[in-house]
Amino acid sequence: MTLEMEQARKGIITSSVRRLAKQENVSAEIISEAVKKGTAVVVKHIDGSVKGIGAHLGIKVNANIGTSPDVCDIEMELAKLRGACSAGADTVMDLSTGGDLDAIRRRIIKASSVPVGSVPIYQAIVETVERYGSIEKLSADAIFDAIRKHAEDGISFTTVHCGVTLRSLEILRKKTRKTGIVSRGGAFLMGWMALTGKENPLYEQFDRLLDIARKYDLVLSLGDGLRPGCLADASDTLQMSELLTLGMLAERARQADVQVIIEGPGHIPMQQIFANVQLAKSVCKGAPLYLLGPIVTDVAPGYDHITAAIGGALAGWAGADFICYVTASEHLALPTVDDVKDGVVAARIAAHAADIAREKPAARQWDDKFAEARFARDWKKQEALSINPERFRKLRTSGRAYSDEVCSMCGKYCAMKIISDIMKNQFQK
Amino acid sequence: MTLEMEQARKGIITSSVRRLAKQENVSAEIISEAVKKGTAVVVKHIDGSVKGIGAHLGIKVNANIGTSPDVCDIEMELAKLRGACSAGADTVMDLSTGGDLDAIRRRIIKASSVPVGSVPIYQAIVETVERYGSIEKLSADAIFDAIRKHAEDGISFTTVHCGVTLRSLEILRKKTRKTGIVSRGGAFLMGWMALTGKENPLYEQFDRLLDIARKYDLVLSLGDGLRPGCLADASDTLQMSELLTLGMLAERARQADVQVIIEGPGHIPMQQIFANVQLAKSVCKGAPLYLLGPIVTDVAPGYDHITAAIGGALAGWAGADFICYVTASEHLALPTVDDVKDGVVAARIAAHAADIAREKPAARQWDDKFAEARFARDWKKQEALSINPERFRKLRTSGRAYSDEVCSMCGKYCAMKIISDIMKNQFQK
Repeated sequence: MTLEMEQARKGIITSSVRRLAKQENVSAEIISEAVKKGTAVVVKHIDGSVKGIGAHLGIKVNANIGTSPDVCDIEMELAKLRGACSAGADTVMDLSTGGDLDAIRRRIIKASSVPVGSVPIYQAIVETVERYGSIEKLSADAIFDAIRKHAEDGISFTTVHCGVTLRSLEILRKKTRKTGIVSRGGAFLMGWMALTGKENPLYEQFDRLLDIARKYDLVLSLGDGLRPGCLADASDTLQMSELLTLGMLAERARQADVQVIIEGPGHIPMQQIFANVQLAKSVCKGAPLYLLGPIVTDVAPGYDHITAAIGGALAGWAGADFICYVTASEHLALPTVDDVKDGVVAARIAAHAADIAREKPAARQWDDKFAEARFARDWKKQEALSINPERFRKLRTSGRAYSDEVCSMCGKYCAMKIISDIMKNQFQK
Repeated sequence: MTLEMEQARKGIITSSVRRLAKQENVSAEIISEAVKKGTAVVVKHIDGSVKGIGAHLGIKVNANIGTSPDVCDIEMELAKLRGACSAGADTVMDLSTGGDLDAIRRRIIKASSVPVGSVPIYQAIVETVERYGSIEKLSADAIFDAIRKHAEDGISFTTVHCGVTLRSLEILRKKTRKTGIVSRGGAFLMGWMALTGKENPLYEQFDRLLDIARKYDLVLSLGDGLRPGCLADASDTLQMSELLTLGMLAERARQADVQVIIEGPGHIPMQQIFANVQLAKSVCKGAPLYLLGPIVTDVAPGYDHITAAIGGALAGWAGADFICYVTASEHLALPTVDDVKDGVVAARIAAHAADIAREKPAARQWDDKFAEARFARDWKKQEALSINPERFRKLRTSGRAYSDEVCSMCGKYCAMKIISDIMKNQFQK
């Protein structure tokens, strides 16, 4: 397997980087330099397609799908996959914890048109609990075997909670948090460490992880198992101590030519987002930052695609590179297909608004074209240019009056129609 | 009618201010001082209820309702009113332009549990167009008569496009904008001025407006008839020249003890929001700022409650006081009752996230209580505390498995359950 980072270090422009350069309209040399420094990563899918995440590239959006113990329907997950891809997700992650995990993962990878990520520790945990009835029997081998199997199956990037350590357990014991740990991987590892007194294998045997990653050029997404689960826990000692650990591990990964992404919070009040993003970028030497949310208020379950869009837009503006969507069902239930589609669009809105704010060259062109179509009241062009043409069409037509000239909101009192008529009749004189 | 500003100037604490002080948990003296300076306004409804907008107070949310020429159903508008109030709108505005405008307005005012605003020039225009077939015959008397009638009916605040002037018309003629004018009031006034060559009566006869406002203690919302309708037009000469005019008129209003609010854009890219808010606050000497949006990308019709929530949260953080909701139907159709409810909640999320960011004392307490209920997996308490309990209940229960202990997203692998079990079993040792 071509190690993108190794090639970049040798000054070789790989075919993947060349492909990315075309997709992003950025020079291959600039991308290759960023890959070399570790400020951008190349994520490769088994079908040969590729996504770039990091410096100089557009902000990317991930959609989490997957079964749970209570709701396990592979066909529904495949429908979510199609929904996510059609809504414009750049990657998907299979977070399944119910059913035949190998079969589900393999079907998702095969059916996906975008790179697929996973969290192999879920499988190690689920299988341990099923076999022994407790997580106490979880072994390092089970964890690393799961990671290797996922990579072999064609997973492109994988979350590894390497920063959850015995030291974090000591901090957690001080009980300063309102919501403890809200990452499943983090909670299980912490539970296992509390039961066994042993160090987290993903931390203690990090080189073993690097060996697997090198073999498959698997991108490691260093997970934030200790991310805050509410505003009160944001930016606390536990979160920050994990970040410092991830920063050190990221450096070791780069030295081994392993590509890494850093995962970030979580629940963060708006006024702390810039500090969080800039700190993560600084501590991790500019490694691409992958954000879950951030959710800017705890009180709006049922609308967390919106709370996360606010946080994601701000974080993207501050420098985050990769936004993990949050759906309206978050905190309440496994999402539906519609939740997935709306979640992807909400995250894409945040990403695009942030790309505009960062003044990335191509971002604003889209809006300018759209504005021209809007002023011309060219509804077909607006539909084609809109972030979700299906929804545009549905709202414009379903059961509500409209004409070719205007929409049903203002009807004949359309401001743009009035002004363009005046401009035509008056301003030409 | 008690003039709140006059009373405040005399050092008299009115019953409305006293009521506000209780609602907001802020001292009556602080509110009265802000009313005196014009940095906060008291908005009174005919039923005796009151809302405060501005310095030291929580950010408020307005919902626009009303008929259009194409969709005119008073019962539907009353359903939207109930929906907006139940979803937590602080005010509503009746923007009707179809049907019997007097009857609709009076029924909305009577049925509303919150202060009602309006845009009287719509009625003046609609009636002129109906009678003469053109806006050319619009008269100053028709405009001021409409304003007086609305105030008499019990409208609490009213949008007046005083900053659209012959000077703006000259700037508009230079055709530097992609989307011209997107405010209906602004477009009609501009059209009328272009046709007649006359100055805008709302600007030229501003004292006449102040006389009406004094008689009813009507809060004037100085409208942004020249707000940008796309990112490309944001923060341009036309927008800024109107703001400067509004700043001068606001000063004249304050001298007449007339309460004023300043309306702001529109479509603004994220990186320009702080500058816009701070400039408006500075030019208008801290007058409360009422924002329409701002919408941070043009490309997402069908999701503009989300683009506006991103912009509204940022603007609120920057200092805006009053957020006008945008619904998912904006730019496409007259909203439905569900659009109205979701639009109000999206705007409330933005307002609350901003109140948190501005570290208003009471704001974070809500989140902290919610976080505790979440960690305790007390679903009843979460539902009661959530921003929309109806939606919380619906998502948690509708057709998807759940238990009292956990939700169907993670099921038995609930991180918070694991951690609280560990904490119980392990940490007590």
